[in-house]
Amino acid sequence: MAGRGAAAPPLFGAAVAGSLAVCAVQLGLAWALGRRLGGRCAPADRWVLGWLCYDVLVHCTLKPSQCAHSTSCTHHTGQEGPFVYLSLIGTVAESDNIFASLWKEYGRADARWLYSDPTIVSLEILTVVLDGLLALILIYAIIKDKYYRHFIQITLCVCELYGGWMTFCPDWLIGSPNLNTSNWLYLWVYLVFFNGIWVVLPGLLLWQSWLGLKQMHHEKSNTRKKIR
Amino acid sequence: MAGRGAAAPPLFGAAVAGSLAVCAVQLGLAWALGRRLGGRCAPADRWVLGWLCYDVLVHCTLKPSQCAHSTSCTHHTGQEGPFVYLSLIGTVAESDNIFASLWKEYGRADARWLYSDPTIVSLEILTVVLDGLLALILIYAIIKDKYYRHFIQITLCVCELYGGWMTFCPDWLIGSPNLNTSNWLYLWVYLVFFNGIWVVLPGLLLWQSWLGLKQMHHEKSNTRKKIR
Repeated sequence: MAGRGAAAPPLFGAAVAGSLAVCAVQLGLAWALGRRLGGRCAPADRWVLGWLCYDVLVHCTLKPSQCAHSTSCTHHTGQEGPFVYLSLIGTVAESDNIFASLWKEYGRADARWLYSDPTIVSLEILTVVLDGLLALILIYAIIKDKYYRHFIQITLCVCELYGGWMTFCPDWLIGSPNLNTSNWLYLWVYLVFFNGIWVVLPGLLLWQSWLGLKQMHHEKSNTRKKIR
Repeated sequence: MAGRGAAAPPLFGAAVAGSLAVCAVQLGLAWALGRRLGGRCAPADRWVLGWLCYDVLVHCTLKPSQCAHSTSCTHHTGQEGPFVYLSLIGTVAESDNIFASLWKEYGRADARWLYSDPTIVSLEILTVVLDGLLALILIYAIIKDKYYRHFIQITLCVCELYGGWMTFCPDWLIGSPNLNTSNWLYLWVYLVFFNGIWVVLPGLLLWQSWLGLKQMHHEKSNTRKKIR
C-alpha cells in the first residue's frame, strides 16, 4: 500500500501548517458568506448557510485533510470532479496530472483513492454531481424560505451519511487493509475528524429538519382545529 | 462466475411459476394489509401503506427474484438478515446452510452475493437494519398522521435509491463482470424489474412528500398572513 511502511513525513511540517491555514481560510470564507447570504434568516440558519457554503466549497475545491503533506499549496485548487475523471479514464496512481499528485497524497491515508476503487468512485460521482447541487439548491431554498427546503435538507444529509457509511464499512468488513492509521494525524485528523464532521453536521441538520417539520405539522393541525 | 457458461436452467420451470405465485401472494397480502391498516387514510396513502407492507415483507422474507429457479418453495422463508450473517461469518458459496442455498441461487444473476462482496454486505446491513425499521415506523406514522411522516418517508426513499445506485454502479464501472445478463429472465426480470421497482416506488413516494411539504408550507404561510 502506498505510504505504508515508508518513512513517515514530518507531522508538523510547513505543508500541514499550510493545509490547516487553507482550512481556516475556507471556514472563514464560508462563515462570512453564510452571514452575508443569511442576513434576514434566523441565527441558526445563518450557521446552516455557513456550513453549506463550506460544504459546496469543499466539494468544489478540496477537503483540507486531502492536502496535508502536499508539496505545494497550489494543490488546493484541486477539485473532487477531477478525481472522478481521472479514476474513470485510468487510475490516480498511473496519472501525472497535477490533480493526481494531490490524490496520490491523500492515498497515503486511504489507498483506495489511488486505484479507482469502484465503490469510492461510485460514491464520488454522487458527491460531486448530486451533493454539490443539492447544497446549492438548499442555500437558495433557505434564503428564499422555499417549501422544498426540508425536502432538500433531508435528502442531502441522508446522502452524506449514507456515503460516509459506504466509504468505510466495505473496508472495515475486510479488516481495513486500505486505511493507514499508523500515525495520529492520518487516523484522528484525516480519517476521524474530517470525515466525522460530515456525520455530525448532517446529523444536526437532520435534527433541525425534524423540529422544523414538527412545528409545521402542529401549525397545520392547529389551523384545522380553529377552522372546525 | 457462478452460473455463467453453465447450461441455462429452464426459463419457465415449476420453480419460476412457484416463485411468481409467492410474489403474487406477497403482493396480495401487502395490498390487503395496506387496505386494513389504512382504513381512515386517504386513498393514495392506502396504496402507500400497501407498498410499505410489501417493502417490510420483502426485507423480512425475500425478494421474489431471488427465489426463481430454487429447488423448493420452502426457500421463500429465507430472510436478508441471514445473508448478512452468513456473509459476515464466511461466504454464501462455502456455506451449507439452508439460507445459503437460496443465495447461491440468486448468485446466478449477481455473483457478488456469493463471495461476501464488502460493498453488497455493507448495503445489506443498512437495508436489513435501517430500511426495514424505517418502513415499519413509516407505516405507524402514516396511520397516526405523525409529524415525522415525511421525514421518515424521505429518509427511507433516499436510502433505497442510494442503495440501488451503490448496488450496481461499482460493478458497471468495471464492466459488469458479476452481472449475468445472458438471458432475458435474469436481465429483465431479476435485475431490471425487481430492482427497478425499488427505484420507481421510492421516486413516487419522494414526489408525494414533495407535494405534502409544499402544501404544509403554503398552509403555514397563509396562516401567518391572516394573523398579520
